Amino acid sequence: MSLGLDSEFAAELEGKVGVVNDVLAGILADARWIGPEVRESIRYALEGPGKRVRAAIVLWCCEVVGGRANRDAEIAAAAIEMVHTYSLIHDDLPAMDDDDMRRGRATCHKRFGEATAILVGDALVTLAFELLAKEVEPAAVAVRLIAELAEAAGPAGMVAGQMVDLKAANGDVSEEQLEHIHINKTVKMFRCAAVMGGVCGGGEEEQLERLGRYGLKIGLGFQIADDILDVCGTSEQLGKTSGKDAKQGKATYPAVVGMAKSKELAQRRAEEAVAALEPFGERGDVLRRLATALLNRTR
Amino acid sequence: MSLGLDSEFAAELEGKVGVVNDVLAGILADARWIGPEVRESIRYALEGPGKRVRAAIVLWCCEVVGGRANRDAEIAAAAIEMVHTYSLIHDDLPAMDDDDMRRGRATCHKRFGEATAILVGDALVTLAFELLAKEVEPAAVAVRLIAELAEAAGPAGMVAGQMVDLKAANGDVSEEQLEHIHINKTVKMFRCAAVMGGVCGGGEEEQLERLGRYGLKIGLGFQIADDILDVCGTSEQLGKTSGKDAKQGKATYPAVVGMAKSKELAQRRAEEAVAALEPFGERGDVLRRLATALLNRTR
Repeated sequence: MSLGLDSEFAAELEGKVGVVNDVLAGILADARWIGPEVRESIRYALEGPGKRVRAAIVLWCCEVVGGRANRDAEIAAAAIEMVHTYSLIHDDLPAMDDDDMRRGRATCHKRFGEATAILVGDALVTLAFELLAKEVEPAAVAVRLIAELAEAAGPAGMVAGQMVDLKAANGDVSEEQLEHIHINKTVKMFRCAAVMGGVCGGGEEEQLERLGRYGLKIGLGFQIADDILDVCGTSEQLGKTSGKDAKQGKATYPAVVGMAKSKELAQRRAEEAVAALEPFGERGDVLRRLATALLNRTR
Repeated sequence: MSLGLDSEFAAELEGKVGVVNDVLAGILADARWIGPEVRESIRYALEGPGKRVRAAIVLWCCEVVGGRANRDAEIAAAAIEMVHTYSLIHDDLPAMDDDDMRRGRATCHKRFGEATAILVGDALVTLAFELLAKEVEPAAVAVRLIAELAEAAGPAGMVAGQMVDLKAANGDVSEEQLEHIHINKTVKMFRCAAVMGGVCGGGEEEQLERLGRYGLKIGLGFQIADDILDVCGTSEQLGKTSGKDAKQGKATYPAVVGMAKSKELAQRRAEEAVAALEPFGERGDVLRRLATALLNRTR
């Protein structure tokens, strides 16, 4: 599960990955109301060794404002991981990016067929909202989390990014347009993770605004690093097909601004993310280390 | 827009269809945060001349317990229509039922391509939850509506029904198994529409239970009538390819129990739906007429 990180931070991330995996496994074990066939394909999708970065951000941001992660944050972390997983399943479909490999295993449609993969994605996004509505208390917190997640994932967020991304393939894209695609496709979900964590921890609006800014900047850095990795990483390291973006003529930072400037931009975004954490003092340390770590990751 | 109904009831339904269409159009007009490209494909999907039966049930059930439909009920009606529309878009995909025609027009993937159709479906289901979270007050009502809708649409509801339906194609299916498929694929959304309406109208739990029972029974009757229409209707009447179920070897009531028993069962379910309305007295009249009307519809 290492991302190629320093060992102290790697252990902290590992701890959160363990929590998220346990929460997801617990949800599936409890969900006897979901029939065995549907459950098996959902489990396959969720058990892939994902990095769980968005979910870890939820848990850490809850701790930063509230002291310790609570059950609401665990549910929010599971929900964002479900929405992220659904987006990967649909993104990998033949009609979309047409990928055979994800998280080091066969993609969902390769394993179960296209129809099931479409439905497993549909099941996961719906289940995420069901969990938030049923498991989070009080109702005002549940509604806030649902609104944040739906806004980040929906037609003015992730879905919009995927749609523009499809059309941008093989086209000329400016640096500005590329940032716009990334903000919708990836960054809003990072921002959402940070804000959801803060909401679960009972953060003040000013703190949530800070966390949102952190999520935005770290998301931008993460996506630039992802583009760089697609060029430099091996498929084995990535757990998905490497060099795929370039082959499909996808708009990426190295393709649009060159490798040197891509690395410089990723560094700058990480620094801006760290700057947003200033008021949190020492409690923000783990989020600061995450910002650096995401630049140096190898997968 | 006529379903082949008696003219008085047809006018009442027409009124509700008008309300739902106006609410949907208003949501899209206000939703400037959704980019123009995404909005155009969402609008195409939502503007198809759907029967809006589920949405009308939300509005009527709100009136039955609360006197008149309110803004919450309008939002709930729009949300359920969005979720229903998303399910049709994904259901029509080549990897699923592979249909070219829906609501009398080209299906979403025929018009915009498969990738966009997948994403428009994803956008609609997410937008439905975003609307409920942002537009319904108080939070406790919003959470209840979201929980009901997600449960009906998700992995223990509509998605499960679609998944089993895929596997049941061309197979031997008992009457009991067929009812199980229909309950998940169609009926839970009807039940959900009735309960959501009741919740928006401030109904007591006992009233919601009655409305849920009505929704369940009317949903069963509706789906049997749908199966009968697939055999007897023309594509022009249906706005979708007729005889499709039989051609694909899908499990349908006429195929499993024969036409005569199908008609008898549909009639019985309508009577059971009407019986559930007993405590509502005259206020339940329009829901009673709906039960009869759905049996006699020609599309």
